[in-house]
Amino acid sequence: MTQDTTKRPLYVGLAGMGTVGGGLVQLLKKDAEMIRRRSGREIVLRKVLVRNLSADRAALLPEGCVLTGNPADLTDDPDIDVVVELIGGTGLAKELILKALANGKHVVTANKALLAEDSKELFDLARSKKCLMRYEGSVAGAIPIVETLGGPLAGNRILSLHGILNGTSNYILSEMTTRNMDFATALSQAQELGYAEADPTLDIDGFDTAHKLILLIRLAFGLDYPFASMPVKGIRGMDSRDIAMAREFGYRIKLVAIAKLHDGDSKDARMEAGVFPMLVHHSLLLARVGGVYNAVRLEGEASGPLFLHGRGAGALPTASVVLSDLLSIAREDRPNNTGFAGDEILPTAIVPPEDWRSEFYVRLMVHDEPGVLRDMAGCMADEGISLAQVIQKEKEGNVVQLVFMTHEASAESMSNALHRVAEKGLLQAEPVYYRILQ
Amino acid sequence: MTQDTTKRPLYVGLAGMGTVGGGLVQLLKKDAEMIRRRSGREIVLRKVLVRNLSADRAALLPEGCVLTGNPADLTDDPDIDVVVELIGGTGLAKELILKALANGKHVVTANKALLAEDSKELFDLARSKKCLMRYEGSVAGAIPIVETLGGPLAGNRILSLHGILNGTSNYILSEMTTRNMDFATALSQAQELGYAEADPTLDIDGFDTAHKLILLIRLAFGLDYPFASMPVKGIRGMDSRDIAMAREFGYRIKLVAIAKLHDGDSKDARMEAGVFPMLVHHSLLLARVGGVYNAVRLEGEASGPLFLHGRGAGALPTASVVLSDLLSIAREDRPNNTGFAGDEILPTAIVPPEDWRSEFYVRLMVHDEPGVLRDMAGCMADEGISLAQVIQKEKEGNVVQLVFMTHEASAESMSNALHRVAEKGLLQAEPVYYRILQ
Repeated sequence: MTQDTTKRPLYVGLAGMGTVGGGLVQLLKKDAEMIRRRSGREIVLRKVLVRNLSADRAALLPEGCVLTGNPADLTDDPDIDVVVELIGGTGLAKELILKALANGKHVVTANKALLAEDSKELFDLARSKKCLMRYEGSVAGAIPIVETLGGPLAGNRILSLHGILNGTSNYILSEMTTRNMDFATALSQAQELGYAEADPTLDIDGFDTAHKLILLIRLAFGLDYPFASMPVKGIRGMDSRDIAMAREFGYRIKLVAIAKLHDGDSKDARMEAGVFPMLVHHSLLLARVGGVYNAVRLEGEASGPLFLHGRGAGALPTASVVLSDLLSIAREDRPNNTGFAGDEILPTAIVPPEDWRSEFYVRLMVHDEPGVLRDMAGCMADEGISLAQVIQKEKEGNVVQLVFMTHEASAESMSNALHRVAEKGLLQAEPVYYRILQ
Repeated sequence: MTQDTTKRPLYVGLAGMGTVGGGLVQLLKKDAEMIRRRSGREIVLRKVLVRNLSADRAALLPEGCVLTGNPADLTDDPDIDVVVELIGGTGLAKELILKALANGKHVVTANKALLAEDSKELFDLARSKKCLMRYEGSVAGAIPIVETLGGPLAGNRILSLHGILNGTSNYILSEMTTRNMDFATALSQAQELGYAEADPTLDIDGFDTAHKLILLIRLAFGLDYPFASMPVKGIRGMDSRDIAMAREFGYRIKLVAIAKLHDGDSKDARMEAGVFPMLVHHSLLLARVGGVYNAVRLEGEASGPLFLHGRGAGALPTASVVLSDLLSIAREDRPNNTGFAGDEILPTAIVPPEDWRSEFYVRLMVHDEPGVLRDMAGCMADEGISLAQVIQKEKEGNVVQLVFMTHEASAESMSNALHRVAEKGLLQAEPVYYRILQ
């Protein structure tokens, strides 16, 4: 609490000098004076673990800092207080973190895949060693959502969470929406600009978003949601017709991560969680999230709705929150790794996706025949689904595009109704349907 | 760090049982189990200081908690760990906090007036006594801006901050905008709904916003800005013509708190800070803040822009962050009171308001005479101000409403130019002008 100006520096070992690692090195050099003002002590980068020990890289390091190719130089050095893991992946990164914790070092990481798929061992070891493991950089770039959920929102029962957590997908959807681009063109443009990887699977198929959602569920609800059980659908192959139709109805299509609590916060609470493209009403702040930005909307029982918006990725935005994790460790903040008392992360009771209820947007390509609308509406009615709006579009050959919005229905009823429509032989293509967020 | 389940409870004394105090009592009773899960220990309310010791109030308290009319029952009780001050004002509240700190108790407060006008003694005493003073509830209701600036944004040089921090003013402006209401009607409606006090001075004249801005400047920049030096203009008497004209140009009028750093973060940095009604371009998220909501937009050098939005006031939203402050104390978080090493809050070098540069909206009521537009434009040109758009509105009698937007100019040039216009005898009423936020 007191500001002991003779406090020894905090010594840091960094693993990985890619985009975010390079950004961190830059900030630690440039902002040394501000860092000392913020934390009351120096933060000194000692060693950087890289695969490629080039002289060009060494030249970027602060004075006295060296490159190494050997992980043990970080994890086994008694003079290093904190290991920052920015390698990514679940192999070497995990070994490195376990070794660092075993040797009593604090850890800062931005590794959402590892924390989402395989974190129990890490958190348990950190707790038993009384080490901190901080990971603000792992979710939503510069948006301080990890800290917010663990700290100032802890006085709330969180009821629901909606997030736009993948900048690549949001960029592609934004370009498709504002420039009438098709999916393939928008994806290759994102790749050219460096917003999408050569293999974009993790981003556009929703898995990156799902990883982040699992971390947020742990922080917001204190629940351990197994990655393998999470329903995930990405934006691959998104049809620009649906983007345009959604606009006509007053919506934007966004890749949304959702988590909602059913039946309160007690031990028998159940969780509705997943990742899907959704129609988001234009009046919601979430609909305004453009380009590579991210956002999170939280509904707290006492706080009401909260909305946080910022850069979702990039060297400096993410490095800035990795640095803030280092500052917190330097100030000896936060004795807690998850926002909950550490040994009380409960398993999640899951609401099966087919039971989820929402309004739906549906697009069907049907034969242009008399009675097709009546037959389709009949199939919906047989499953108890009522229609809110219907738009029948101009023909393409003998095929008509039929778009409608429903009142609230379960995913199971919708799926059954669409099976009925298919069985009647009305469809010329796979039906497309998305949930709606009002 | 470890979760010692036998940890003793955190004992709390609460001063004040008004809106927020009542909300806190409610949350402490209702959410006891969640609080234990979040912090690993119980938070027990022992005593509540009130002026009116009614049985009705006593009935609202948790078991074992008593009402008292004597401040010393809180500050001098060795079994109380934390005093929560929700009385407000700068008299008894200050005495109470000083006494509590002197006796080694942590303090949680939501008292922005006290912290803005007279905080040095409080922070100094807290530091010397190694006590925490937390105040998340003092700014922007449920939005966790105090924690965000002190924690996850600490890895940033904050370049600028724009806030909508007063729910009452924002409600009045929103009603004037969306329902074409005049100021007096919107104010009395706000009073009827309990959104404005009988004496609304603090809110509508901008002082409440200025108090909050001073706290944010301390957190974001580590600078001590004297309240008496802050330029403050509220929304009293806002003319609905300007609201309507702003809309025509694509803007919303909002009461905005601004703080911008000139010349970097070093010891010679200068601060541009103040509170004014401004025209905010409709494409900005700040323009979308409606009703009693608050929002803060931060520009971090590394993080880029961040936007936080939520409920600005109300019993439970504010109580929820007061509770989060208690949780942090229960978990022994955060050894720091301001986001900076405590003894390094620097005095502010102030950019004089006349030197500020921005684009301007100007409305003049002028005689309908030949050459009046030429003369007005001449006065502007003589001060180096160029016009971006001009709208001349229909006459009211012999008076014409002349509205224009300028390119960037200093406040001093604008003031001089308007003096020239007045000296020419062109004006039929006081000129109205507002800064523009693009």
